[in-house]
Amino acid sequence: MPEGGLVVGQSGGPTQVINSSLVGVIEEAVRHKEITGVYGSLRGITGVLNDNFVDLARESKETLALLRRTPGAALGTVRHRLEPDDYERIVKVLSAYDVRFFCYIGGNDSMETAHKVHLAAQEMGYELRAIGVPKTVDNDLAHTDHCPGYGSAARFVALAVRDSGWDTESMGPSSPVKIIEVMGRNAGWLTAAAALGRQAQGDPPHLIYVPERLVDDDRVVRDVDRVVAEREHCVIALSEGAVPDTGLHEVDAFGHGMKGRAAEYLASLIRQRLKLKVRLDRPNYLQRSFCLSMSEVDAEEAYRVGRSAVQLAVDGQGDVMVTLERTLGERYHCDTGTVALSEVANAEKLLPDEYINEEGNDVTAAFLDYARPLIGEPLPRLGRLQGFPVLAQSR
Amino acid sequence: MPEGGLVVGQSGGPTQVINSSLVGVIEEAVRHKEITGVYGSLRGITGVLNDNFVDLARESKETLALLRRTPGAALGTVRHRLEPDDYERIVKVLSAYDVRFFCYIGGNDSMETAHKVHLAAQEMGYELRAIGVPKTVDNDLAHTDHCPGYGSAARFVALAVRDSGWDTESMGPSSPVKIIEVMGRNAGWLTAAAALGRQAQGDPPHLIYVPERLVDDDRVVRDVDRVVAEREHCVIALSEGAVPDTGLHEVDAFGHGMKGRAAEYLASLIRQRLKLKVRLDRPNYLQRSFCLSMSEVDAEEAYRVGRSAVQLAVDGQGDVMVTLERTLGERYHCDTGTVALSEVANAEKLLPDEYINEEGNDVTAAFLDYARPLIGEPLPRLGRLQGFPVLAQSR
Repeated sequence: MPEGGLVVGQSGGPTQVINSSLVGVIEEAVRHKEITGVYGSLRGITGVLNDNFVDLARESKETLALLRRTPGAALGTVRHRLEPDDYERIVKVLSAYDVRFFCYIGGNDSMETAHKVHLAAQEMGYELRAIGVPKTVDNDLAHTDHCPGYGSAARFVALAVRDSGWDTESMGPSSPVKIIEVMGRNAGWLTAAAALGRQAQGDPPHLIYVPERLVDDDRVVRDVDRVVAEREHCVIALSEGAVPDTGLHEVDAFGHGMKGRAAEYLASLIRQRLKLKVRLDRPNYLQRSFCLSMSEVDAEEAYRVGRSAVQLAVDGQGDVMVTLERTLGERYHCDTGTVALSEVANAEKLLPDEYINEEGNDVTAAFLDYARPLIGEPLPRLGRLQGFPVLAQSR
Repeated sequence: MPEGGLVVGQSGGPTQVINSSLVGVIEEAVRHKEITGVYGSLRGITGVLNDNFVDLARESKETLALLRRTPGAALGTVRHRLEPDDYERIVKVLSAYDVRFFCYIGGNDSMETAHKVHLAAQEMGYELRAIGVPKTVDNDLAHTDHCPGYGSAARFVALAVRDSGWDTESMGPSSPVKIIEVMGRNAGWLTAAAALGRQAQGDPPHLIYVPERLVDDDRVVRDVDRVVAEREHCVIALSEGAVPDTGLHEVDAFGHGMKGRAAEYLASLIRQRLKLKVRLDRPNYLQRSFCLSMSEVDAEEAYRVGRSAVQLAVDGQGDVMVTLERTLGERYHCDTGTVALSEVANAEKLLPDEYINEEGNDVTAAFLDYARPLIGEPLPRLGRLQGFPVLAQSR
């Protein structure tokens, strides 16, 4: 059992709870005498490459407590593809600091990085335990029930689509269609969470389009036409990846082509074919940063996978990512487990068929059961007027 | 002193607290024996025109309590220009229901409507007391310290720009510029509120552009270049109305011209001139509907102006809007007052010079003093790592 330092880094897009995982790593690491120092690598793996560390063991309890409510990645993050030669340099730097434990918080690209660091160390005969800590609002990592980060972003999306949807409903037929564009790349997990904002039948969103069922123009027009005919308005939760590349692209103010955007495309389609006013919300980065929507369940799990990563490393494991494994039972609970980094690195978990309805424009009850516990406390209830008629004698 | 019914309507864009004003009207109205019925006009003034009322006095206490946390306008809202003939019809319908009190919750267009209803009743010799209840996230109504609705939207904007800004900071130089587009039409009040999200010098937003100082391309390029040189990233809070109409317009996916949008324009400019990656957030309708950002101060004041409107009407006033008047003193407090509807109807209150810095890219301390109490509780504090160096003996 080697003694030595621990390096932790954050990688990829931040989440509301990525710093909870960081604090979990720090608070667990300082409890183990085998861990002789706790170093933060600034800007992900580039901090190791550039010998750019901070001493995390000296941070105050107060700072760590605040970090658990702070958006962004406190160590800075990075999207950086390493060159083959970089791995040797990384192991050399880690060895110069006598680092034996390496915790990397990120998505599947980051798990690949961590795996390659492990392989390089192995090849160089340097004992190093690399552990992945899952993180992504997209919820697209394989071999884990869900990813820390998803619950809080899902809570934001559920609240945003609900609240903006009720706004649209009250605006009436003069402005009947609202599209809220949701993150998630190729996976519909985050968009599907919009369904959690419904309190009763007929509540927004009325249509949910996910990349697992690419939208077809004619079907969208039929769907929207039907919903507007039924209730005079229509609220759509649309995955950024749900619109296929049509070859049609916007041209920006300077005449340059721009990447086609899902919400703009669908809005144009509805305006043209149905002659309806369409409003758009594109909250983009708020989905992964807006702290008021933090799910307490998510924050606690993010913290727990951070601690678990350190425990695993100290117990002699390496080349694995911490997973969340849902236990059966009345009450929601997840245990932590492990999976080989290489198995996560190149996999992408999409919404399974049983979570998408037959028409491809909504989710199923099974999805709601899966996702509801992850967003934490039940959403605050909203009120509707009963709408009692004014009695004739009033006249 | 006439007895009779009271009609209340909601008009224009909803706010997080527009239903608090409605509940204030209802709860005050049922306390007065002179008020023989409390009727809600569905979809603003069109509810009166179309004889479309609900009996609000029969709503449960529980519904009213929930409404105070509910986005959208519970009675439905409308943007509808009345024809001259409509006013006679409106007074006839009100008279058929023996309505003597008319409370209209809205912005300056709605105050004009309420004033014209007053004039029509006067001309027809029908005693009616029309009272305006101010509401707008734009905060652009004259003769009131501020407008109910502004505080909650301002809290959203402060949190959104802060949280998304910290996300940008942690992403580093690979994605250095973020623009958050903020509502407000011709007024910069809401965008200015982004400054309330700063905890320390250097915190986002780094640039604030408001319509009162239209942006100049060269100046924006200079501003952004300077900020990015200083800190490797730059977060911009941009009013939707801050970019002058340049004649350059986007073309949508179908080749149709689209209205030029502020954020897209500025993003194109920065990408072209500075070769920097730019990210956009356009939370649009979330600014006025996202309930988690409700300011308790705002909600309480919205409720209070609703109650005050009824008290004024019962006390014999009419053709006035309720105002908020800030009292001098250590602790923030507003009394309610009144102003003639006609004086509000055609006025627009923009950010005064003393609230905008000389460079036209930020607000002043005087603005912060004005706006801070309106957003309610202090924003939850965020944490930053101290960033202690790793000591040499660690190596």
